[in-house]
Amino acid sequence: MGRAASARAPAHASDAETRATTDHHAALRVWLRMLATTTLVEGHVRGLLQSGFDTTLPRFDLMAQLERAPAGLQMGELSRRMMVTGGNVTGIADQLERDGLVARSADPDDRRALRVKLTAAGRKAFKAMADAHEKWIVAALGTLDHAELATLAGLLARVRAHVRTKYGERP
Amino acid sequence: MGRAASARAPAHASDAETRATTDHHAALRVWLRMLATTTLVEGHVRGLLQSGFDTTLPRFDLMAQLERAPAGLQMGELSRRMMVTGGNVTGIADQLERDGLVARSADPDDRRALRVKLTAAGRKAFKAMADAHEKWIVAALGTLDHAELATLAGLLARVRAHVRTKYGERP
Repeated sequence: MGRAASARAPAHASDAETRATTDHHAALRVWLRMLATTTLVEGHVRGLLQSGFDTTLPRFDLMAQLERAPAGLQMGELSRRMMVTGGNVTGIADQLERDGLVARSADPDDRRALRVKLTAAGRKAFKAMADAHEKWIVAALGTLDHAELATLAGLLARVRAHVRTKYGERP
Repeated sequence: MGRAASARAPAHASDAETRATTDHHAALRVWLRMLATTTLVEGHVRGLLQSGFDTTLPRFDLMAQLERAPAGLQMGELSRRMMVTGGNVTGIADQLERDGLVARSADPDDRRALRVKLTAAGRKAFKAMADAHEKWIVAALGTLDHAELATLAGLLARVRAHVRTKYGERP
């Protein structure tokens, strides 16, 4: 039917319009799906951290950033590296310090600044949480095979790089 | 080199292990990338809504859910449909009602319940925000062509369906 119609009339403008509208809707639909999928997975991760470890996602995220920085981080850098928003980084670090999981000390390279690090207890607590978290993520994303995971990673990386280049880091 | 090594020794167990570790890391890496990409895009969307419309993402999200439900929604159903977490739905609805953008009235099918709807002013305000939002999303995701958007949508849908089936809706 499409072919018959296009044989009858010069439908170029209208096709382009339809395509543009379809593309607009496709981009918006993909974004809403990305948001819904992330929110769904994140909700389960929050539940897992709460029920299994009596902790929160921002606490886990903060410890994950420190685990990747054995020399510790200044608070500003730590804030910038956090993956989840919401929650005041100083407040979370204060709680973790009271629980003995992180420690603050003078930065050897910058005496006016403090550096925050995981303690030995913090590294141990983080390891248990990170193992459970990884296991759950593997089960959640395990419906995709290796090639599909690589495709998904590549497409997300393209979107991320494009947004960073065009609009900068998140405001 | 890989071929020479595997010709020398039965490396099956170690290959399987490497593959499992690689797959685990792949799933975790994809999830961290999904989280980072969503957080980045969401941060820009929050900035756009704030600077362009002096509004927040939860307010926009609430209005978007109502725009898709012209007959209005009961509060419980509205909460369930929200795509972003954080922010108390009743409080947001109260603010929007004070601003004349939503209205609450008795539900004709259930006299004990209230239904919340967009007002005419709410629909108009939402339309302006939704147009700007869609334009920005199209620019942000526009680095992917039509086929890539479809691939990304399909992979996200698979993850979402799998998580819902296996673990249920977000807790």
